[in-house]
Amino acid sequence: MKLFTTGCMKFDGNTFLILDQTQLPHQENWLKCENVSQLVEIIQKLAIRGAPAIGIAASVLLGILAEKGLTKEQLLDAADTLRAARPTAVNLMNNIDQMKRVIIDSDDSSYITKEAETLLDEDIQLCGSMADHGASIIHPGEKLLTHCNTGGLATAGIGTALGVITRAHEQKKDIFVWVDETRPLLQGGRLTAWECVNRGVPHKIICDNMAAMLMAKGQVDRIFVGSDRIAANGDFANKIGTYSLAVLANYHKVPFYVVAPKTTVDPECSSGDLIPIEQRSSDEIKGVSGSFGSCQWAPNESDTFNPAFDVTPAELVTAWILDTGVFTKQDLPKQSWWLG
Amino acid sequence: MKLFTTGCMKFDGNTFLILDQTQLPHQENWLKCENVSQLVEIIQKLAIRGAPAIGIAASVLLGILAEKGLTKEQLLDAADTLRAARPTAVNLMNNIDQMKRVIIDSDDSSYITKEAETLLDEDIQLCGSMADHGASIIHPGEKLLTHCNTGGLATAGIGTALGVITRAHEQKKDIFVWVDETRPLLQGGRLTAWECVNRGVPHKIICDNMAAMLMAKGQVDRIFVGSDRIAANGDFANKIGTYSLAVLANYHKVPFYVVAPKTTVDPECSSGDLIPIEQRSSDEIKGVSGSFGSCQWAPNESDTFNPAFDVTPAELVTAWILDTGVFTKQDLPKQSWWLG
Repeated sequence: MKLFTTGCMKFDGNTFLILDQTQLPHQENWLKCENVSQLVEIIQKLAIRGAPAIGIAASVLLGILAEKGLTKEQLLDAADTLRAARPTAVNLMNNIDQMKRVIIDSDDSSYITKEAETLLDEDIQLCGSMADHGASIIHPGEKLLTHCNTGGLATAGIGTALGVITRAHEQKKDIFVWVDETRPLLQGGRLTAWECVNRGVPHKIICDNMAAMLMAKGQVDRIFVGSDRIAANGDFANKIGTYSLAVLANYHKVPFYVVAPKTTVDPECSSGDLIPIEQRSSDEIKGVSGSFGSCQWAPNESDTFNPAFDVTPAELVTAWILDTGVFTKQDLPKQSWWLG
Repeated sequence: MKLFTTGCMKFDGNTFLILDQTQLPHQENWLKCENVSQLVEIIQKLAIRGAPAIGIAASVLLGILAEKGLTKEQLLDAADTLRAARPTAVNLMNNIDQMKRVIIDSDDSSYITKEAETLLDEDIQLCGSMADHGASIIHPGEKLLTHCNTGGLATAGIGTALGVITRAHEQKKDIFVWVDETRPLLQGGRLTAWECVNRGVPHKIICDNMAAMLMAKGQVDRIFVGSDRIAANGDFANKIGTYSLAVLANYHKVPFYVVAPKTTVDPECSSGDLIPIEQRSSDEIKGVSGSFGSCQWAPNESDTFNPAFDVTPAELVTAWILDTGVFTKQDLPKQSWWLG
């Protein structure tokens, strides 16, 4: 495996390391990732998150394990275990399936490693293309809004939704971004804010329930969000709270964009209703926990509801910004609209 | 001043005590409230909150100070200082203005104390009337949703919005309530959840951004919220996130009710645009702090936006549930619709 460094993972020739996002923004700890069970744990505790980053990390690990001499059977077992680590992340499944095809077809492990490198390079390029497409929509001086984290911590490149925003900033468009804190895991308040600080993007953090008021006051010109899975009909799953934003955007006539690589589109999934929604632990609602500290403010006796994602129907989307282009509702009826 | 105990304040004949809500649900600390500067501090750090509770606490303190022999001038000074402690709370201003009239008119301090007792008793009765009116709307088996805290911690009685929900539960209507955690200060996740536990009301805590998904899935039959100030045209200010819920309810055709005593209506305020919105500290957005612990998850370098309230326009309200009755949009054009 070639040496590389992205916003959230790196390989130094010996060790594959993943930035522990549960510890940001206060600490930058890099976790060793030497085998499948380590990566599954890293994925499940959300130390790495963002569908594209998870997919690339899993592929890179398979590439490294192939180089270390694991057998075809061992690699296929590893691939299946990784594939099941995060059920909503279609990129993970797509990347793993691609790696499995190469594992099955090739008797030379270098092809497997090469495939992982190709997927890594492709993700960086995909992000660049999405950023270019999306930034072309943004007018100078606009106020944007984003949810969750979709930058260099969620992908191998500049990001998806936050990549678009970052590119507009790089183009000196004088943009500003409202960062939804994104309860319960605070990926916005912790991670997107940290990336905005690092990238010099002007921003303010808000609680998720403040976005509506800002829209009513004309303080939001466009909303950009990422996606964990897009159905063939354009419905998409993303971090809980995304659907809420889409409805609010619709009411206030604020354009609402999904930014994702075309690999996020799952052609086998005909509609958003079919996307499985992971339910997470009650602790996340009753308090917060991380390197920044840990506390519970809710009564022990109270129960909670904690879906990780929600599904936004296609009718609430202004455009789908993919690496292959910008698609609108008019494109949806076309065969393979997401391929451009 | 007669002896009394409510959900959030009590007088034992010697000392006026206020339950420190910043310490709930894990600790029940009662704060001594012996002078104006103590009560202003208690109000400003949100140890007591909820517009009706604040108004009653201020009136009770004036009643106690009158009994202690403060002069008319001292009492009027005290009243003015208390009146300015929380600019959005119209109940505070109404109650203080009523107390001032009695202070000016009477030469016998017992009239001042008696007036404070009357305001206290009235608030308990007003809550009972609102609870009865609101509960009559609820059908058996319905799933309700509420925001912030509007129960016995926010009033001297059963509460406003949470009073309605509690009354329906007392009537064995088999109701269930989704409790918005209500970032940033978590009055829902801490206080409403605590009251639901104490009152035996079946509930689950959710993050504010999850309400939309529940509405889309048909899991919310009605939404009840309180109000800090209702304008003469029916627009109203309430805890940040209320407007967001109102827009989401409108889209999903979920009935949306405001519950407040008629004293919350400010006839001098013709429209919601004129209600001042308090901006609060950045610390509240960057983390959490309370008896439950304290932590900051956001980068030091990030800026924030933290309005305490938002304004919901009358057109998004299904009905205003006051102690004087249930009012709909048809009532708005009538002179003094809120008087019944």
